[in-house]
Amino acid sequence: MTKEIYENPDLKKERQNCPFNKEEITNFLDGGKEKTTERRQLVNSMAALYILETYILSDEQLKDPVPMEYLSHADKYAEDLRKSCLLMHKLADSPAGQVQTLRSLMGAGLGSAILKEGNPIALHYVMFIPALMGQGTVEQQAKWLEKAYNLNIIGTYAQTELGHGTFLRGLETKATYDPATKEFILESPSLTAYKWWPGSLGKTANYAVVMAQLYTKGKCEGIHPFMVQLRDEETHEPLPGILVGEIGPKLGMNTNDNGYLGFDKVRIPREQLLMKHSQVLENGTYVKPTNSKLSYATMVFVRVVVCQDVTLNLRKAVTIATRYSCVRRQSELKPGDREPQVMDYQAQQHKLLPPLAATFGFQLAADHLWNLYNTANNSMEQGDMELLPDLHGLSCALKALCSSEAANFVETCRQSCGGHGYMSCSNFPRIYGQVTAAITYEGENTVLWLQVARYLVKTRKEKSGGLSVKYLIDEEKGPRTVDTTPEGILRLYRRVAVGLVDIAIAELENNSRKGYAPHDAWNHAAVHLIKAAQAHARLFVVESFVDSLKESRLSSPVRSILSQLCELFIIYWILDRSGDFFLCANLKKEDLLLLNSKYVHLLAAIRPQAVNIVDSFDLRDEILGSPLGCWDGNVYQRLFDEAAKSPLNQKNVHESFHKYLKPLLKSNL
Amino acid sequence: MTKEIYENPDLKKERQNCPFNKEEITNFLDGGKEKTTERRQLVNSMAALYILETYILSDEQLKDPVPMEYLSHADKYAEDLRKSCLLMHKLADSPAGQVQTLRSLMGAGLGSAILKEGNPIALHYVMFIPALMGQGTVEQQAKWLEKAYNLNIIGTYAQTELGHGTFLRGLETKATYDPATKEFILESPSLTAYKWWPGSLGKTANYAVVMAQLYTKGKCEGIHPFMVQLRDEETHEPLPGILVGEIGPKLGMNTNDNGYLGFDKVRIPREQLLMKHSQVLENGTYVKPTNSKLSYATMVFVRVVVCQDVTLNLRKAVTIATRYSCVRRQSELKPGDREPQVMDYQAQQHKLLPPLAATFGFQLAADHLWNLYNTANNSMEQGDMELLPDLHGLSCALKALCSSEAANFVETCRQSCGGHGYMSCSNFPRIYGQVTAAITYEGENTVLWLQVARYLVKTRKEKSGGLSVKYLIDEEKGPRTVDTTPEGILRLYRRVAVGLVDIAIAELENNSRKGYAPHDAWNHAAVHLIKAAQAHARLFVVESFVDSLKESRLSSPVRSILSQLCELFIIYWILDRSGDFFLCANLKKEDLLLLNSKYVHLLAAIRPQAVNIVDSFDLRDEILGSPLGCWDGNVYQRLFDEAAKSPLNQKNVHESFHKYLKPLLKSNL
Repeated sequence: MTKEIYENPDLKKERQNCPFNKEEITNFLDGGKEKTTERRQLVNSMAALYILETYILSDEQLKDPVPMEYLSHADKYAEDLRKSCLLMHKLADSPAGQVQTLRSLMGAGLGSAILKEGNPIALHYVMFIPALMGQGTVEQQAKWLEKAYNLNIIGTYAQTELGHGTFLRGLETKATYDPATKEFILESPSLTAYKWWPGSLGKTANYAVVMAQLYTKGKCEGIHPFMVQLRDEETHEPLPGILVGEIGPKLGMNTNDNGYLGFDKVRIPREQLLMKHSQVLENGTYVKPTNSKLSYATMVFVRVVVCQDVTLNLRKAVTIATRYSCVRRQSELKPGDREPQVMDYQAQQHKLLPPLAATFGFQLAADHLWNLYNTANNSMEQGDMELLPDLHGLSCALKALCSSEAANFVETCRQSCGGHGYMSCSNFPRIYGQVTAAITYEGENTVLWLQVARYLVKTRKEKSGGLSVKYLIDEEKGPRTVDTTPEGILRLYRRVAVGLVDIAIAELENNSRKGYAPHDAWNHAAVHLIKAAQAHARLFVVESFVDSLKESRLSSPVRSILSQLCELFIIYWILDRSGDFFLCANLKKEDLLLLNSKYVHLLAAIRPQAVNIVDSFDLRDEILGSPLGCWDGNVYQRLFDEAAKSPLNQKNVHESFHKYLKPLLKSNL
Repeated sequence: MTKEIYENPDLKKERQNCPFNKEEITNFLDGGKEKTTERRQLVNSMAALYILETYILSDEQLKDPVPMEYLSHADKYAEDLRKSCLLMHKLADSPAGQVQTLRSLMGAGLGSAILKEGNPIALHYVMFIPALMGQGTVEQQAKWLEKAYNLNIIGTYAQTELGHGTFLRGLETKATYDPATKEFILESPSLTAYKWWPGSLGKTANYAVVMAQLYTKGKCEGIHPFMVQLRDEETHEPLPGILVGEIGPKLGMNTNDNGYLGFDKVRIPREQLLMKHSQVLENGTYVKPTNSKLSYATMVFVRVVVCQDVTLNLRKAVTIATRYSCVRRQSELKPGDREPQVMDYQAQQHKLLPPLAATFGFQLAADHLWNLYNTANNSMEQGDMELLPDLHGLSCALKALCSSEAANFVETCRQSCGGHGYMSCSNFPRIYGQVTAAITYEGENTVLWLQVARYLVKTRKEKSGGLSVKYLIDEEKGPRTVDTTPEGILRLYRRVAVGLVDIAIAELENNSRKGYAPHDAWNHAAVHLIKAAQAHARLFVVESFVDSLKESRLSSPVRSILSQLCELFIIYWILDRSGDFFLCANLKKEDLLLLNSKYVHLLAAIRPQAVNIVDSFDLRDEILGSPLGCWDGNVYQRLFDEAAKSPLNQKNVHESFHKYLKPLLKSNL
């Protein structure tokens, strides 16, 4: 006898007669059938969950006895440290051959289902070990890498300072070489020089790769990485001259253990400068690195990962909101009828279907960039760095676009769930906390937009640039009429990008004519430059979406629904910023009205498949982490079950009643 | 000897040579010099702070020994209950004559400086007492009102249910009259019928006004208010048949003690139906209310308060971000120069100056609506309800617009502060949590937009409606050229509102022609209807802004800066949604480029006065509650001081090291 599984009748109905094979969409998003299998087995952070389902997810010790959001800040930290450590032990005991892979997956956030608010030892894998591998010499790696792999030491990466973020040249921490003792002296010359933000730094790490201005022979040679021991390996007490602590609670990721770090004349041996790329000799002579472009490649890689991460989070949000909107019934459409599913309101479709479509657009654009990067990597390994500026520009643009749009979309999803979306257990607040952080980290978006703009302006003016900006050089000729096929719409996006770059250039030239110095002319054109960069990024996403569908082998039902999503998405962005299209792409009123009616037609056409599409995202309930979004749609019972976990609900009368409230009630004010 | 007060040198410089009198702007925003004095003394929630500065703010017992964000969910509740109770005791002992006023101010959130995350007894003043006064008979008020004023009982207002929010007719809680015992029987017929969300309900209140479907003589007479005792007045234990608890943590306002409530056949005497407006006689006969429009007036009032509240919160966010942006230095503008103040970047001005200007626009529009309401109130008291639909429409529109725009602007302010804005102590997360909640409560915004749209469509089609929609009836004639004076721009906004209403009507008619039933035709035009309603709301705000300046007596320097802010704001919205202006207001490319250049010119012109303007908001540091935004600009030291309060920083080594981390480090994985 099989146990009967509950399924909300509305969701059951949504799932009946699905015209396409959901697994095919899953495969398409994963990049192929084998990739889905790999993912489910091993490839990414979620994979480990699948493999270790019975081994990890069923482990009561890895579950939260009380949901994290009820705990104090310090208890949250301690609880996630407990689970992280337990997980590492379990992984060490896990089936041979998987240990190393799974460990490194910790960094990629293994078990957002288990470690929901971050992970006190994540930075060890994400930043510390990679920094050691990328910047340490063979001898240095021999000295520290095994200890790091064995978790005899736990490290972090300390770059950002209290007063200095994106602008690396502004960092103040000093490392001055003293040839007499063959040591570097680390110093924080001011309060703003304190390291501030590094994850794991607050209470967990006992080592750090510290970025500091290298001074030798009286000259500053710029930022370099130093291996620094922070705490005693036995007692965990900070070493002399090390001032370390945690920075306090944040909007999200509260068990990441972000910390501060100051140096009061801390001496470290010369050999602790990570010297793979540049060296300081015993006598203090500085030896320059041979190639400075390699770090760009790392940045491209990291930004692709950020795009994938925010897209995954957006998928979670859309799945939760879509399922909830098909369970929730509200108000009245047809007089006298039962309250309709909220999803049947056009206004709700307008909130949820564009982000649903966007998850495909962002994913395909990130995949596209990833493929370009891998192709380029081959030539780069042979010393050809020509493709790098173009890739770098694209990665900046895509990271800035995906993070800011995904953050807005996640909030739209949350708000579409009304009051229940405001509850912590809905998981929207946590998802938003993670996505919105990506607007700031790995290059603050505004800074990135301006970098992209610089590349676009240069390309347009010098008629020379990489593949992604070719459209700025060889401008399309032909009729300037508007056609609303996907290809026609791509042309509109291209015209808008070109047009906005030209407007920015005109503004720059106008500022120069006014007598502004070049940096002032640039600054006073920033609003236009950013708009141009954003148009370029949007173009890349819509092109990736349209082209991927064209190039993929898909069954006719899957092609049909994905084409509708693609069309919806590329029209949505036009309607959302139609002024740019009037301004630069010759859009006419009739065109806009036509696109409007196409758009609402697509909302209605996609609506019946919304649940089936989010089902195909293949996200387990543990990963969604929300009573609103569970597969079975048992929303209200699950909300109740969540509330029952509140420590305040364990007794009818809280002790504070006797302490505070009763005396007030009885005091006859 | 006076103590020397620190002032960050950059802020000091910003404040030098302020060309206008800040106090005059303060007075303007308050609505007059006397109002400022009143406010500082007594009038609004902040007032109490001013009056009671030495009495309350200096009271160590009212300060948090550890900032709230470090506490567990239950401890946060207990701590705010402690402070609320203490505050009530103190107020009872405060100078005569102020007690009553100050007590009722508790509801308006007295001391966002003291009770930052809400207030477990706020609903008592905001909803319970007003409901009793508005809906109880004289006898009923005599019975409960004094007990409520004396805080012998603490009440709340229970309306929303787990499965039912905005749509009141859908509420399930039943109150069935039993003439045999002269009692009502309260029942929650299903899980979704449980009350869910009322503040103070979880652990604090022992009474509630409960909204339930009234059944008598076998007939449902709709939603009515019932006075229900929930808990024993001595033991605080829930009474038999009462199922009550708290619903768990939320995105914000976590000490509001939101709760759930179910009824298992709870019998209450007939006299506990609040019978000011409708009655049930002993024999079960239902007597209808005479006037159902009065509740609209309450809604108008509440929505004006919501607008003022989100605007105040936006002012806090803008103040924090603006001061921080003048202290923070970042990157490089002029090669070789010192890192510039972030505020000197046009991109940052573009982020902060529109919300700065918006705080004026929203405030003036809310004031304008408030004046209209008061004028109308006089005629309403004489039984003339004609003005009410118009006022109701305006209040819906303004509430929806202010809450959604303010939420977006608050997030822009937060993100403009980079990583430090992400920290809880910046106060941005808390401010956002409060503002974004207003999108959902007191009428979910999408529902409100559609109500407004219904009024606009009706007006336009029937050529009849109130003052606020007159422009839809007597459409302006004259040349359709664009002029960019404020009056010219107002005409553009009017044309856009008219044009979008017409597009929505065309869509409705188109849907009817397709054979849709009226409700389907309406639903399938929702996207257009919402756009039209938003354009109408924007028009009201920009008109209020322009007209208020015109009608106010202002010194020439104040008029000059406020006019710049007004122009910036009304152009900002055009640029932000220029497509609508191309579509409906005959905007040409040249016009848009001209507005673009006006806009960036205004950014530069207003920039030097940004700090002086936010200073004139007259917000105390305790109300801002952010190390980033303090008057003295001592940002970095204050951030450090905040971090020092973290319980995790009280010892160098946290106990979790010994329990979890050390065994891992020593296990040689």
